Amino acid sequence: LLLEEALAALTPKKLAGTRILVTAGPTQEEIDPVRFVSNHSSGKMGYAIARQARLRGAQVTLVTGPCAIAPPYGVEVVRVQSAAAMREAVLARLDQIDVVVKAAAVADYRPKVRAGQKVKKGAEEIVIELEKNPDILGELGRLKGKQVLVGFAAETDDLVANAKAKLTRKNLDLIVANDVSQEGAGFNVDTNIAKLLFADGRLEDVPLTGKQELAGIILDRIEQLRKAG
Amino acid sequence: LLLEEALAALTPKKLAGTRILVTAGPTQEEIDPVRFVSNHSSGKMGYAIARQARLRGAQVTLVTGPCAIAPPYGVEVVRVQSAAAMREAVLARLDQIDVVVKAAAVADYRPKVRAGQKVKKGAEEIVIELEKNPDILGELGRLKGKQVLVGFAAETDDLVANAKAKLTRKNLDLIVANDVSQEGAGFNVDTNIAKLLFADGRLEDVPLTGKQELAGIILDRIEQLRKAG
Repeated sequence: LLLEEALAALTPKKLAGTRILVTAGPTQEEIDPVRFVSNHSSGKMGYAIARQARLRGAQVTLVTGPCAIAPPYGVEVVRVQSAAAMREAVLARLDQIDVVVKAAAVADYRPKVRAGQKVKKGAEEIVIELEKNPDILGELGRLKGKQVLVGFAAETDDLVANAKAKLTRKNLDLIVANDVSQEGAGFNVDTNIAKLLFADGRLEDVPLTGKQELAGIILDRIEQLRKAG
Repeated sequence: LLLEEALAALTPKKLAGTRILVTAGPTQEEIDPVRFVSNHSSGKMGYAIARQARLRGAQVTLVTGPCAIAPPYGVEVVRVQSAAAMREAVLARLDQIDVVVKAAAVADYRPKVRAGQKVKKGAEEIVIELEKNPDILGELGRLKGKQVLVGFAAETDDLVANAKAKLTRKNLDLIVANDVSQEGAGFNVDTNIAKLLFADGRLEDVPLTGKQELAGIILDRIEQLRKAG
């Protein structure tokens, strides 16, 4: 903590007065009290952005799904489990926020029915019906006023095309795309390889770098977008 | 580590020469490279048993699904993701083992098909077909020679009846039953409330206790079973 405070004191306060909400981690969508559908996400990228934003003087709210890592010092932490709970937590705070960075790996689908008791295993095969979760990022894109909205795209193929389509569809200002099938990118590692795609068509390559460093680069770009916008 | 070594030095070596394999944590059954079906399990109970067994002088192998907690010092750690991988890791070691404690919360079902690429979200609803995972505990019950076999039952209703049926069906020597719907028991907490059911019909109540302490009680019973058997 002392070290973290010293680091904070030494970091230029470029984001002082900026209120940033960061979502991070996976969501868990329960099938019954013991089983759930989820997705790989350590939360490291979102936690790194929350930490670096706070070091730069921002007022940070971290809305996080279940993660194994400790949240950064000095940020407000809101813990949620499901996509529905994450949506509520984000929307409730939206009008107090200048920048939203949606780094969470929200489950796209959730079970249509959640059993109140543990489902006994009997049948050789079972079928789970899933329905679409609320599209939080899309909703934010529709609702946003002068907020800067940043999303992520984790893809295994057609990285740039898929990310570009998402940027437009969700009305984002910036999307951070990474090919999770590449060595050194993706889940549970401390590094990332990213492409930054902007609403004005610019594309910036970020070669293999630490997640903390990538977080810093993303926040620099956010600061530029805030100045320009 | 120094403390752990001091503790080990002070603990009577009642299990010296005993080779114990402990499974712990959840398993993850992948739908595609980013999504999976899993179940709540911190791994704390299994890790506690591995730790306490090692403090008592046992030679411990911990076969563990993805957990957020650090494995105990001085035990062999084998990391696996799916139930199929856990099964392989356990069976490969079985003839070198005296005691198997299956504390893992193995997923009962896995997706019939695992997509090689991330499935794009398009449809409003999707259906996932699940098939039964291998029943590792049942297989161990059929294969076991003079090994002591200990299982767990996490239930939300009909605790004793369900646990007793499982004990018989899987040919266990001891089953540790806990009602995960009770306060102070179950997932992600440091305490447990358990009933120990033995193959000879005995039932022992363990009131609310720490997981490390419960691990010690289970190991004491295992030692008694080994002496009697």
